[in-house]
Amino acid sequence: MTPANRRIALAARPRGLPVPSDFALVAEPVPVPGAGQFLVAHEVLGLAPAARLRMSDEAGSYAAPLQIGDTVYGQAVGRVVASRHPDFREGEWVMTMAGGWQDYSVTDGTKVWKIDPALAPPAVWLGALGVSGMTAWIGLREIGRPRAGETVVVSAASGAVGSCAAQFAQAWECRVIGIAGGTDKCRYAVDSLGLAACVDYRAPDFAEQLRAACPQGVDVYFENVGGAVRETVWPLLNQGGRVVVCGLISEYNRQGAPEPGPAWSDVLAKRLCVQGFILSDRVHRQAEFVAEAGELYRRGRLRFREDASFGLEQAPAAFIAMLQGRNLGKSVVHLTEPRKT
Amino acid sequence: MTPANRRIALAARPRGLPVPSDFALVAEPVPVPGAGQFLVAHEVLGLAPAARLRMSDEAGSYAAPLQIGDTVYGQAVGRVVASRHPDFREGEWVMTMAGGWQDYSVTDGTKVWKIDPALAPPAVWLGALGVSGMTAWIGLREIGRPRAGETVVVSAASGAVGSCAAQFAQAWECRVIGIAGGTDKCRYAVDSLGLAACVDYRAPDFAEQLRAACPQGVDVYFENVGGAVRETVWPLLNQGGRVVVCGLISEYNRQGAPEPGPAWSDVLAKRLCVQGFILSDRVHRQAEFVAEAGELYRRGRLRFREDASFGLEQAPAAFIAMLQGRNLGKSVVHLTEPRKT
Repeated sequence: MTPANRRIALAARPRGLPVPSDFALVAEPVPVPGAGQFLVAHEVLGLAPAARLRMSDEAGSYAAPLQIGDTVYGQAVGRVVASRHPDFREGEWVMTMAGGWQDYSVTDGTKVWKIDPALAPPAVWLGALGVSGMTAWIGLREIGRPRAGETVVVSAASGAVGSCAAQFAQAWECRVIGIAGGTDKCRYAVDSLGLAACVDYRAPDFAEQLRAACPQGVDVYFENVGGAVRETVWPLLNQGGRVVVCGLISEYNRQGAPEPGPAWSDVLAKRLCVQGFILSDRVHRQAEFVAEAGELYRRGRLRFREDASFGLEQAPAAFIAMLQGRNLGKSVVHLTEPRKT
Repeated sequence: MTPANRRIALAARPRGLPVPSDFALVAEPVPVPGAGQFLVAHEVLGLAPAARLRMSDEAGSYAAPLQIGDTVYGQAVGRVVASRHPDFREGEWVMTMAGGWQDYSVTDGTKVWKIDPALAPPAVWLGALGVSGMTAWIGLREIGRPRAGETVVVSAASGAVGSCAAQFAQAWECRVIGIAGGTDKCRYAVDSLGLAACVDYRAPDFAEQLRAACPQGVDVYFENVGGAVRETVWPLLNQGGRVVVCGLISEYNRQGAPEPGPAWSDVLAKRLCVQGFILSDRVHRQAEFVAEAGELYRRGRLRFREDASFGLEQAPAAFIAMLQGRNLGKSVVHLTEPRKT
């Protein structure tokens, strides 16, 4: 009997925050790799806010929108179980950026990384040593370029990307201030990640707390959130400040006119650099990233926390919770027995 | 009898567009250089929109605001007439960035360039080979970074900075599209500067004309203007586009809330780089700039047009005309007999 490939398909385009009925669980035969392809059996899926962007069909997204019925986009870690590709052998562990929310995927190796489960458990390759960590690293290395002693503010600081950005900046000897929602996340950022401070954006005196935490102003703002959080950081930016536009989670569910950007007069007057980026343009630096991040991970200076769900059918609920900020750490879905991470 | 130093002082802070009564002509004794200083007798003054920024006392400008009674800020070219500085001798020609609207200035040599009147007449050292040209060159070299074949759009393309930006981009084999106000300026940009096209932003079908002139989209936007012109360019920006925020002349007279910036979702989705800069941070590259720009000037590939007034007392009127866009080329004020440029 042929095993089934279960997958989560987009059933309807969400309006605002997705709801469970926007998704459908579908079972189909497991695909068969063609020449130059291989089949990956997924073990863990990574959920990322950017998947929300592909669920809309608005122009201007950086990714082609999903069609109704398509498998939801996402990263997966798994093992090669059948291969007609010369560079990938059965049994090898990989992270595939476009694996999708499903049990199996076929790929020609594009945007697939081999991973080393001896260095870190599979889920870590979806987070600190995967797309989340590399997104943080590219944004800081290429745009933020923080120098030792500078003040770096990271929004969504307890999240998958933010926690890595904060820890890289700390490894580079910056003063790192986090922003997160709620006392648990802030405590995690300070106690576990070792940030200089983490400010709760839900606090009534958020702006005052942030200003007090940044007495030298802000040299780099790593933007994961957008909206009101950005407005609060903006006046604190120093001359020559860099704004790494990595994500805008507060705006992904937005409908109607786009959020207006920074005052242009500030861009000129403060010589700001405001720059967006997308990891998929920069994957050629993956080996360099893993060398640095892997060493930090090994030394305990790149901590990773997963917010785990179990079972493919839990992916939509976990995704919705993540968009609401109810996760702590990288949202992942284990498809097989949970592994110790 | 001691000769007088006549200077134009700020008499009142302009509200919106300056008016003549915001300025006062004052006569005082010529200052005497102290140890390590020298005295420059100005021959030509350069007028620049950025001077308007210093006339306001709002926070957020990149320069300290003038106080009432201060000499209006501006560049000047002249000769050293008395020196107690080891590196500057009497008779040498210089461009002094902070000379101001006056007959003489004393300086310690900070932001003073020696100029070569054999290469180009004095006024050119206020324009194509001076602050205007170097502003264009830094903005393109460091932020725009256009590659051969890319489309570069320059607003205020017939102006002092814009005309240089357009010509540098052409020398680097880009396709350059200008934006200017009125048919005379557009014709000058095409016929004299050799741009591929120049679109009149006052035309009722400006947006359609601009789109038609940029069939490959826009890779670099050199922003001198702000406001509605920027809004029209914005949707044409390509993925990975760079926006050089050099000036925002349409906003300098603005009162009230600052102009909102670009949609953040575009910054992320198109991986845009939006960056402001100020020449005074980059003056260490002056020799490199003059080597390249001087060679282009010598070969007739960096054309310069001055919009000349004569007599210090004409500076306020010429400045107001420039802010209204009634100049064509670099606005300069000759304090002595006009020289052939």
